[in-house]
Amino acid sequence: MNFTACITVGLKDGMLDPEATTILKALNNQGFHVESLKAEQKFTAIFEATSKSDAHAQAVSMCEQLLANPVIQRYEIEVF
Amino acid sequence: MNFTACITVGLKDGMLDPEATTILKALNNQGFHVESLKAEQKFTAIFEATSKSDAHAQAVSMCEQLLANPVIQRYEIEVF
Repeated sequence: MNFTACITVGLKDGMLDPEATTILKALNNQGFHVESLKAEQKFTAIFEATSKSDAHAQAVSMCEQLLANPVIQRYEIEVF
Repeated sequence: MNFTACITVGLKDGMLDPEATTILKALNNQGFHVESLKAEQKFTAIFEATSKSDAHAQAVSMCEQLLANPVIQRYEIEVF
């Protein structure tokens, strides 16, 4: 059975995020008054799994092995 | 009043996505059997607005002016 995993990968709290800082500055230079900005990556993967928990376990492996750097990044997984 | 806008920016349907293709290949090379993969950017911005609809309008301007390339990208905005 096919499952869809929505995976959000972002920096752990306390890590410097130069990408978000740059975008925040650019927005404020354009006249917006943005207080804070967070930039993350979102992956939507469709794959086969035997159950929802198997799908979740596979998604965790994908994050640990490839999609995220577990040293500095955290990830959230939602399976449908 | 402060509002939070969750903005997801991704390529329009039909656009080639070499980033997603590369990640998909890499996942399958690692032994996963992923059928399809979509890669998007997610921004979470906190800013002041007079109302929810004002906040939404500001988020649309941010996308059109800076966060997305409206020629090849689409965006979704959720305001809280």
